[in-house]
Amino acid sequence: MCQTTDNNQQSQNKADMVQVGETKHVNGVNGHNHQLNKKDQPRNPYAPRYADFLSNISNFKIIESTLREGEQFANAFFDTKTKIAIAKALDAFGVEYIELTSPAASEQSRLDCEAICKLGLKAKILTHIRCHMDDARIAVETGKDLLYCFLPFARSAGGRFMCVDGVDVVIGTSSFLREFSHGKDMAYITKTAIEVINFVKSKGIEIRFSSEDSFRSDLVDLLSIYQTVDKIGVNRVGIADTVGCANPRQVYDLVRTLRGVVSCDIEVHLHNDTGMAIANAYTALEAGATHIDTSVLGIGERVGITPLGGLVACLYAADPDYVKSKYNLPMLREIENLVAEAVEVSVPFMNPITGYCAFTHKAGIHAKAILNNPSTYEILKPEDFGLTRYVSIGHRLTGWNAVKSRVEQLKLVLTDDQIKDATAKIKELADVRTQSMEDVDTVLRVYHSGVASGELEIGDRQMFDRLLRRHRDSSVSRADVPQDAIEGATTPNASIPNAVTA
Amino acid sequence: MCQTTDNNQQSQNKADMVQVGETKHVNGVNGHNHQLNKKDQPRNPYAPRYADFLSNISNFKIIESTLREGEQFANAFFDTKTKIAIAKALDAFGVEYIELTSPAASEQSRLDCEAICKLGLKAKILTHIRCHMDDARIAVETGKDLLYCFLPFARSAGGRFMCVDGVDVVIGTSSFLREFSHGKDMAYITKTAIEVINFVKSKGIEIRFSSEDSFRSDLVDLLSIYQTVDKIGVNRVGIADTVGCANPRQVYDLVRTLRGVVSCDIEVHLHNDTGMAIANAYTALEAGATHIDTSVLGIGERVGITPLGGLVACLYAADPDYVKSKYNLPMLREIENLVAEAVEVSVPFMNPITGYCAFTHKAGIHAKAILNNPSTYEILKPEDFGLTRYVSIGHRLTGWNAVKSRVEQLKLVLTDDQIKDATAKIKELADVRTQSMEDVDTVLRVYHSGVASGELEIGDRQMFDRLLRRHRDSSVSRADVPQDAIEGATTPNASIPNAVTA
Repeated sequence: MCQTTDNNQQSQNKADMVQVGETKHVNGVNGHNHQLNKKDQPRNPYAPRYADFLSNISNFKIIESTLREGEQFANAFFDTKTKIAIAKALDAFGVEYIELTSPAASEQSRLDCEAICKLGLKAKILTHIRCHMDDARIAVETGKDLLYCFLPFARSAGGRFMCVDGVDVVIGTSSFLREFSHGKDMAYITKTAIEVINFVKSKGIEIRFSSEDSFRSDLVDLLSIYQTVDKIGVNRVGIADTVGCANPRQVYDLVRTLRGVVSCDIEVHLHNDTGMAIANAYTALEAGATHIDTSVLGIGERVGITPLGGLVACLYAADPDYVKSKYNLPMLREIENLVAEAVEVSVPFMNPITGYCAFTHKAGIHAKAILNNPSTYEILKPEDFGLTRYVSIGHRLTGWNAVKSRVEQLKLVLTDDQIKDATAKIKELADVRTQSMEDVDTVLRVYHSGVASGELEIGDRQMFDRLLRRHRDSSVSRADVPQDAIEGATTPNASIPNAVTA
Repeated sequence: MCQTTDNNQQSQNKADMVQVGETKHVNGVNGHNHQLNKKDQPRNPYAPRYADFLSNISNFKIIESTLREGEQFANAFFDTKTKIAIAKALDAFGVEYIELTSPAASEQSRLDCEAICKLGLKAKILTHIRCHMDDARIAVETGKDLLYCFLPFARSAGGRFMCVDGVDVVIGTSSFLREFSHGKDMAYITKTAIEVINFVKSKGIEIRFSSEDSFRSDLVDLLSIYQTVDKIGVNRVGIADTVGCANPRQVYDLVRTLRGVVSCDIEVHLHNDTGMAIANAYTALEAGATHIDTSVLGIGERVGITPLGGLVACLYAADPDYVKSKYNLPMLREIENLVAEAVEVSVPFMNPITGYCAFTHKAGIHAKAILNNPSTYEILKPEDFGLTRYVSIGHRLTGWNAVKSRVEQLKLVLTDDQIKDATAKIKELADVRTQSMEDVDTVLRVYHSGVASGELEIGDRQMFDRLLRRHRDSSVSRADVPQDAIEGATTPNASIPNAVTA
């Protein structure tokens, strides 16, 4: 109901971004964000107020991993057709990279990877492989596994097989994973990493090296291996919060430290076990990360990773123009619906942007201000996402300002005092049951006709109840509804308008 | 399916928290978190590694606002019975405060507030009112509104009406709200605030003063009014990210700055429009905030506020013992179900802790490590929340280690090479359709009996397919299923085990 109903939509054309009354003169330039000096452009009140030279909030790339991490979601089983539909939608949305399940995972995974490479999308295609010595040996022995990524579909523009654009290599570096997963020490990991990276680079393919469980890894081990792989020319290093244990300040500290150690790009992959994956991604960009891993609706292992929509929401809030210029925002809802259907989940009601009521305003105090200027209670402009706002007024938290707006929409002529009087009735009815817009309209129309005929005066509750009852009875007889509906409609208090609209 | 199935549950009794191999000697005490010096206690790897004297991560209170902010969720209409059920559940869970809709909102709101005060809960009861001069005047004139909070239910233990324990006062301070909502300047706001605070204090009731839209307010204005109300003895000041525009570092900076200005408690109220409300709450505690507003599932205006479950998840990750000692964690799921039902939404599939598959592990690499030690890929122990973990193995990302664990559960005797051979078949079948646990079991049992009878050798795919077909045929004839089911079962490849278990 929420985004699609625009009965109560107002003020959409007003300037949504209000300039804060600030002094215009600047006594010094140091310490001021360069964005503030752009002329003829209203200052975005959510942008950083001070210079932040590390920040890539307005300079980042998305590595969309619905077709890799997302396939690790318990419910996920993507057939070839679905994978292609998702890849095409993500490409049309504008993500810079699409990451696919390792071709070594299964024969069908290999065929699907090949099929998506052949689509010729604008987005770069990556695949995600393990970097164990075990795997490396198997690859050499069998000519499969790793080699699948490169040989079977050498890229060309001339209609031959297309190859992946890059390979994301990962290995666990925490003591937890070293002890209980692969059982290797850092020297072994480093040696294997160098071997794999050199091999991949020799094929002319982009390569990322990532640790796994980075936030439970020894910092010195981490920086040491990142420095090593940076020196041998890896394109990106990756930090992964594999278990979802990191918090924003930890992320900031680690990325910022790493930023001072390597010269290559920095990718972050953040799980959402404690619900902080969006904020961690945002903070990583502030600290100098360049690439963020996402999946549609965040699907992945356990509760998943940074969701595409949530990331877009917070980055849009920081720099709407940049985000709008990069991505086809009105497609977001369609992509989320596509993936939700494929993995048989509902889009969460509290999803940023596309959630059930993300642009619905209810409390009287909110509704009043929203009707004056949507920026009062909205940092995201629904129209930029192809959505609409909705002001809910038929409940006991309603206020007369919101009701007044509805009165004006209905082109009824009532004074403020009369509107306050009618609002008191709406609150009374809503104390028993939430009133639909039709219910509210009925109250207002009956109030208006009572005033116009001279029958009703402010504060005359008995007369108002009588008029509402009369209106109900005539509506019921017109509609010729069954007797039991009329019985139901005679419940005291709130049911009158509902019966009218039944 | 996920949390309730424990077929594959393993290692629950192993020590889940593994001590990181660190040097035991400490050369200095400064700069080390005092928690690290606690003897006989394994270090929590997610705890801060350094001293953080501002942090209240292990010293906070929850102000649970499902019955106030939550009532502003578009879908919410709580009748008295539901409000009482939610209040009792939250009290049993252990939240320190329960915040209720203003008694001035409607007559039923007043009656409900009274009813909940009468319950005699351990949690303190708060109500939330506006701090406008307009409202103050109406309150004085009519003897209603504000006075509702105090007079009609003066607290006593002797069976008389019980009063609320505290009042949360709020007013918009941003230029947006000052211009488009109440239209008052800071001098007026300050004057009104002092008046209302002194009035409430004179009744011996706890009082919080909060700005609204704090992150778009002028910092000097904010600090000035907070300092003023702190001096006149307010119990708490509140920071509210009313529009959900804040990010973690902004929250940290503002709370930390405020911490140096006031001596009273600091409450934060954070909306979730960009999905950062949990992280912002966590960061606020790190900066010295003392009270966090939550609602169950985060319900509230638009996409709501910091969810109770998410906040518990991140704070549990930081200090499990503290969180376990304060709250009845296994009740979380029940409370979420209660509220979800009341507002007619589903618990989001990616909800921290209680999400559909929050403790389901799928990728082979994850499954293997989880079976060795759950801490490898879990920072939350499901058993602390009355939940169980689940390792999913019937998919194409499966690995032989996870399959081996199932083989052992089934008490089948197979070598590692035989298990790898059977795993290849499971991956092949799962490439067409995800396999249920029964499907997987069938593959393993048929493989095992083939090996035991001497009919099957490693790598003999033809024979294995023949054995699976024979098993299917005999099962079908035993089950005497209708012909169309048999037709369905003859689809090539993957359907064999499914047919068996149909």
